[in-house]
Amino acid sequence: MPELRKEPVSGRWVIVATERAARPTDFETNPQIIKSSFCPFCEGNEDKTPPEILAYRDNGAMPNTGGWRVRVVPNKFPALQAEGEYFKCEDGIYDKMNGIGAHEVIIESPRHIQSLTSLDNGNVEEVLSCYRDRLIDLKSDKRFVYGLLFKNVGFSAGASLEHTHSQLIVTPIVPPLVANEIANAKVFYQRTGKCLFCDMIQQEIETDKRVVISTDNFVVFAPFASRFPFETWILPKKHESNFENLQGAEAKELAYVLKSVLAKLEATLDFPPYNYIIHSAPFNVTESKHFHWHIEIIPRLTNIAGFEWGTGFYINPTPPEESAELLRI
Amino acid sequence: MPELRKEPVSGRWVIVATERAARPTDFETNPQIIKSSFCPFCEGNEDKTPPEILAYRDNGAMPNTGGWRVRVVPNKFPALQAEGEYFKCEDGIYDKMNGIGAHEVIIESPRHIQSLTSLDNGNVEEVLSCYRDRLIDLKSDKRFVYGLLFKNVGFSAGASLEHTHSQLIVTPIVPPLVANEIANAKVFYQRTGKCLFCDMIQQEIETDKRVVISTDNFVVFAPFASRFPFETWILPKKHESNFENLQGAEAKELAYVLKSVLAKLEATLDFPPYNYIIHSAPFNVTESKHFHWHIEIIPRLTNIAGFEWGTGFYINPTPPEESAELLRI
Repeated sequence: MPELRKEPVSGRWVIVATERAARPTDFETNPQIIKSSFCPFCEGNEDKTPPEILAYRDNGAMPNTGGWRVRVVPNKFPALQAEGEYFKCEDGIYDKMNGIGAHEVIIESPRHIQSLTSLDNGNVEEVLSCYRDRLIDLKSDKRFVYGLLFKNVGFSAGASLEHTHSQLIVTPIVPPLVANEIANAKVFYQRTGKCLFCDMIQQEIETDKRVVISTDNFVVFAPFASRFPFETWILPKKHESNFENLQGAEAKELAYVLKSVLAKLEATLDFPPYNYIIHSAPFNVTESKHFHWHIEIIPRLTNIAGFEWGTGFYINPTPPEESAELLRI
Repeated sequence: MPELRKEPVSGRWVIVATERAARPTDFETNPQIIKSSFCPFCEGNEDKTPPEILAYRDNGAMPNTGGWRVRVVPNKFPALQAEGEYFKCEDGIYDKMNGIGAHEVIIESPRHIQSLTSLDNGNVEEVLSCYRDRLIDLKSDKRFVYGLLFKNVGFSAGASLEHTHSQLIVTPIVPPLVANEIANAKVFYQRTGKCLFCDMIQQEIETDKRVVISTDNFVVFAPFASRFPFETWILPKKHESNFENLQGAEAKELAYVLKSVLAKLEATLDFPPYNYIIHSAPFNVTESKHFHWHIEIIPRLTNIAGFEWGTGFYINPTPPEESAELLRI
């Protein structure tokens, strides 16, 4: 079982693999995505993944066979494992716990396509529904505290397979970055009686210097202090802390917005490597007045170097005002 | 002038370039270090860098000519700029300040060599002396708050030139990661009356599971919660908060230790990309009982993906106990 270890100086948590350690020769000098003719995510190869957890299928076809539109399977090389009990202990000045959690892969299409933007809007909406369904199911396990939905596209953004997919990792503690966002938002709420994100949306729409697209229910902007060139955030205009409450017309609209922004990034930056991450409230929060779910899209065009690792500062060579101008839809 | 902007949700600071924005075409699809026949850092090309700030020279040769052993010049493309006054303001819910600071390059050899390990021990010691001299000089400017010394080796670690060099960036605020380390160490000190780092050194030497090398005055170990495979930290055994107090026999010993560890990493991992970062106390601290300077060396063998960006957790596929066993000197 993987081990969660806390670094006492920084307070960082690290998931340390303990079962099969990567040796020096496992790290490629010129690594890239394996472009093999065989893809375990394609329709027809259902027996090459662990058995499915969920699939949206036509006409009640059998599990782990073809005929699906979106399919969720456990990650074959999970960062955290679902079997076992929560266990925390000290090792002198160090803290550690066992790596309880879940790690799932959302395969977004039965066809071997490489981008979410190749799906039609209805399929993108089903991917979002699938995110919601998995969060709702995993929340019922009381050992689990947080679920992070994210997508890695391109080798330098951490993808190892090109077939379009997302991931869901469930953790036994609230991740530090999420805890920090919630704490900062709470301080703002206590000081002003308002949601920081709602205020940010209002200021961005009013100043209109960094807005990429604004629809009835969503706004997309390049954040004021973007870490990366062409970083963009998607936020629901109506205050809502939990992504899994998304449904109906709003889900349809988000599918359109997400696909449009990704397509614009692909066109502007010639299919850049990128990550997107859904920031939602922890599992035990059913409604928060100060936290507001959002999606962060970060193209990976710049390297993180010693300065960033040593300070936590980022250097962004492209002002978000210019990114937004180029991405505006 | 670059602008320092604070992201209100995370509390992150970002340095946003405002003068010459990088456009989409500036981001290479397959970037790498430029292997040109011309190198501005080589002896004889002194007029191709901005005028030098400091150099160690033989027999009093003229500045900005040959005959130097270590040379410090301003970075031609600085992240922060030394001219101007400190100025902070609000923009609605956002905070920003002008990018006052310094950005220097320490050229470690007049010869076109690509690794610090190609220098002899005396030269490495001079590089460390140079680090110290620059920190002491920059501390006297009251606008400056923190000086970060670091090294980027290899393209994916952020290097753009291969000629062996380090960098020094001086910031007008204490960087968040440093502030966080100091705060955690202070809490530990208040609770126990002891330095967290001194305790860590003691536990690592006693358990001896993660020690790479231990000399009279220094210990090198793979930290308990290493973020990266083969991450190693160098710490002085005697409590000391400020790197710039390093001198005499200890400086000589650190040169030997640093060079030995880097050489072992190069041999074990076939010249990996890496960063090292010196964590020292802020400029206004002359002596701290709870902070302890150290060097973090991080080989860059794994990609940072959506999970890490979304949580602040890291996934390390190589337990530090195995890294230390392979690196042991």
